Amino acid sequence: MKARIKITLKNGVLDPQGKAIQNALGGLGIAGVDQVRQGKYIEVDLAEKDEARARATIERMCKDLLANTVIENYSYELVA
Amino acid sequence: MKARIKITLKNGVLDPQGKAIQNALGGLGIAGVDQVRQGKYIEVDLAEKDEARARATIERMCKDLLANTVIENYSYELVA
Repeated sequence: MKARIKITLKNGVLDPQGKAIQNALGGLGIAGVDQVRQGKYIEVDLAEKDEARARATIERMCKDLLANTVIENYSYELVA
Repeated sequence: MKARIKITLKNGVLDPQGKAIQNALGGLGIAGVDQVRQGKYIEVDLAEKDEARARATIERMCKDLLANTVIENYSYELVA
Protein backbone atom coordinates (compact mmCIF):
# COMPACT_ATOMS: atom_id res chain seq x y z
CA MET A 1 0.00 0.00 0.00
CA LYS A 2 1.06 3.51 -0.68
CA ALA A 3 0.34 6.45 1.62
CA ARG A 4 0.40 10.09 0.56
CA ILE A 5 0.95 12.25 3.61
CA LYS A 6 0.54 16.03 3.72
CA ILE A 7 1.95 17.95 6.67
CA THR A 8 0.93 21.57 7.02
CA LEU A 9 1.52 24.27 9.59
CA LYS A 10 -1.47 24.98 11.83
CA ASN A 11 -3.35 28.21 11.30
CA GLY A 12 -1.74 31.04 13.19
CA VAL A 13 1.74 29.54 13.07
CA LEU A 14 4.11 31.89 11.27
CA ASP A 15 5.42 30.57 7.96
CA PRO A 16 8.52 32.52 6.90
CA GLN A 17 9.21 30.10 4.05
CA GLY A 18 5.74 30.75 2.63
CA LYS A 19 6.29 34.50 2.99
CA ALA A 20 9.60 34.21 1.13
CA ILE A 21 7.86 32.39 -1.74
CA GLN A 22 5.13 35.05 -1.82
CA ASN A 23 7.74 37.83 -2.04
CA ALA A 24 9.67 35.98 -4.75
CA LEU A 25 6.46 35.56 -6.78
CA GLY A 26 5.88 39.31 -6.50
CA GLY A 27 9.42 39.84 -7.77
CA LEU A 28 8.65 37.65 -10.79
CA GLY A 29 5.66 39.86 -11.59
CA ILE A 30 3.04 37.32 -10.52
CA ALA A 31 0.41 39.41 -8.76
CA GLY A 32 -2.81 38.53 -6.94
CA VAL A 33 -1.23 36.07 -4.51
CA ASP A 34 -2.95 36.53 -1.14
CA GLN A 35 -1.15 33.89 0.89
CA VAL A 36 1.37 31.08 0.49
CA ARG A 37 1.86 28.31 3.04
CA GLN A 38 4.53 25.69 2.62
CA GLY A 39 4.24 22.20 4.00
CA LYS A 40 5.73 18.79 3.43
CA TYR A 41 4.55 15.98 1.21
CA ILE A 42 5.73 12.46 1.90
CA GLU A 43 5.03 9.28 -0.04
CA VAL A 44 5.49 6.02 1.83
CA ASP A 45 5.36 2.54 0.30
CA LEU A 46 4.24 -0.02 2.86
CA ALA A 47 4.52 -3.77 2.58
CA GLU A 48 1.26 -4.05 4.62
CA LYS A 49 -1.78 -4.99 2.50
CA ASP A 50 -4.48 -4.60 5.17
CA GLU A 51 -5.95 -1.10 5.16
CA ALA A 52 -6.73 -0.85 8.89
CA ARG A 53 -3.24 -1.92 9.87
CA ALA A 54 -1.64 0.35 7.25
CA ARG A 55 -3.69 3.24 8.66
CA ALA A 56 -2.49 2.49 12.20
CA THR A 57 1.13 2.38 11.03
CA ILE A 58 0.82 5.70 9.18
CA GLU A 59 -0.82 7.34 12.21
CA ARG A 60 2.07 6.19 14.37
CA MET A 61 4.64 7.46 11.85
CA CYS A 62 3.00 10.86 11.67
CA LYS A 63 2.65 11.28 15.44
CA ASP A 64 6.09 9.93 16.38
CA LEU A 65 8.31 11.23 13.61
CA LEU A 66 6.93 13.09 10.62
CA ALA A 67 4.76 15.83 12.12
CA ASN A 68 5.34 18.08 15.10
CA THR A 69 1.76 18.03 16.33
CA VAL A 70 2.24 21.13 18.45
CA ILE A 71 2.49 23.31 15.35
CA GLU A 72 1.61 21.01 12.45
CA ASN A 73 -1.42 19.12 11.15
CA TYR A 74 -1.18 16.00 9.06
CA SER A 75 -3.54 14.28 6.69
CA TYR A 76 -3.06 11.30 4.43
CA GLU A 77 -4.70 9.09 1.89
CA LEU A 78 -4.04 5.43 1.25
CA VAL A 79 -3.81 4.07 -2.27
CA ALA A 80 -3.84 0.36 -3.03
CA MET B 1 -9.20 30.46 -5.54
CA LYS B 2 -6.91 28.15 -3.66
CA ALA B 3 -4.31 25.90 -5.27
CA ARG B 4 -2.78 22.86 -3.64
CA ILE B 5 0.55 22.11 -5.26
CA LYS B 6 2.57 18.95 -4.79
CA ILE B 7 6.18 18.88 -5.90
CA THR B 8 7.90 15.52 -5.99
CA LEU B 9 11.29 14.26 -7.12
CA LYS B 10 11.26 12.46 -10.43
CA ASN B 11 11.75 8.70 -10.42
CA GLY B 12 15.40 7.82 -10.38
CA VAL B 13 16.49 11.00 -8.59
CA LEU B 14 18.19 10.15 -5.30
CA ASP B 15 16.25 11.27 -2.22
CA PRO B 16 18.58 11.28 0.81
CA GLN B 17 15.91 12.99 2.95
CA GLY B 18 13.48 10.16 2.20
CA LYS B 19 16.19 7.61 3.02
CA ALA B 20 16.86 9.35 6.34
CA ILE B 21 13.15 9.18 7.21
CA GLN B 22 13.07 5.49 6.28
CA ASN B 23 16.07 4.76 8.54
CA ALA B 24 14.54 6.75 11.39
CA LEU B 25 11.28 4.81 11.06
CA GLY B 26 13.28 1.58 11.31
CA GLY B 27 14.91 2.94 14.47
CA LEU B 28 11.44 3.57 15.93
CA GLY B 29 10.54 -0.06 15.32
CA ILE B 30 8.19 0.64 12.41
CA ALA B 31 8.90 -2.15 9.97
CA GLY B 32 7.58 -2.94 6.50
CA VAL B 33 8.45 0.40 4.95
CA ASP B 34 9.66 -0.24 1.41
CA GLN B 35 10.33 3.31 0.27
CA VAL B 36 9.93 6.90 1.44
CA ARG B 37 10.09 9.91 -0.89
CA GLN B 38 9.85 13.44 0.44
CA GLY B 39 8.45 16.30 -1.56
CA LYS B 40 6.98 19.73 -0.98
CA TYR B 41 3.39 20.77 -0.51
CA ILE B 42 2.43 24.38 -1.12
CA GLU B 43 -0.94 26.05 -0.65
CA VAL B 44 -1.48 29.28 -2.56
CA ASP B 45 -4.46 31.61 -2.15
CA LEU B 46 -5.12 33.51 -5.36
CA ALA B 47 -7.32 36.57 -5.78
CA GLU B 48 -8.17 35.31 -9.31
CA LYS B 49 -11.69 33.83 -9.59
CA ASP B 50 -11.46 32.53 -13.16
CA GLU B 51 -10.30 28.93 -13.28
CA ALA B 52 -8.46 29.07 -16.61
CA ARG B 53 -6.50 32.15 -15.62
CA ALA B 54 -5.76 30.74 -12.16
CA ARG B 55 -4.45 27.58 -13.82
CA ALA B 56 -2.17 29.62 -16.09
CA THR B 57 -0.82 31.55 -13.09
CA ILE B 58 -0.12 28.38 -11.13
CA GLU B 59 1.62 26.77 -14.11
CA ARG B 60 3.86 29.81 -14.40
CA MET B 61 4.63 29.78 -10.66
CA CYS B 62 5.55 26.11 -10.74
CA LYS B 63 7.76 26.39 -13.83
CA ASP B 64 9.49 29.64 -12.89
CA LEU B 65 9.96 29.32 -9.14
CA LEU B 66 8.50 26.42 -7.20
CA ALA B 67 9.70 23.33 -9.03
CA ASN B 68 13.05 22.52 -10.58
CA THR B 69 11.66 20.73 -13.62
CA VAL B 70 14.97 19.03 -14.36
CA ILE B 71 14.60 16.81 -11.31
CA GLU B 72 11.09 17.49 -10.00
CA ASN B 73 7.51 16.94 -11.12
CA TYR B 74 4.63 19.09 -10.01
CA SER B 75 0.90 18.58 -9.84
CA TYR B 76 -1.84 20.72 -8.43
CA GLU B 77 -5.54 20.95 -7.82
CA LEU B 78 -7.64 24.08 -7.72
CA VAL B 79 -10.32 24.55 -5.09
CA ALA B 80 -12.92 27.30 -5.31
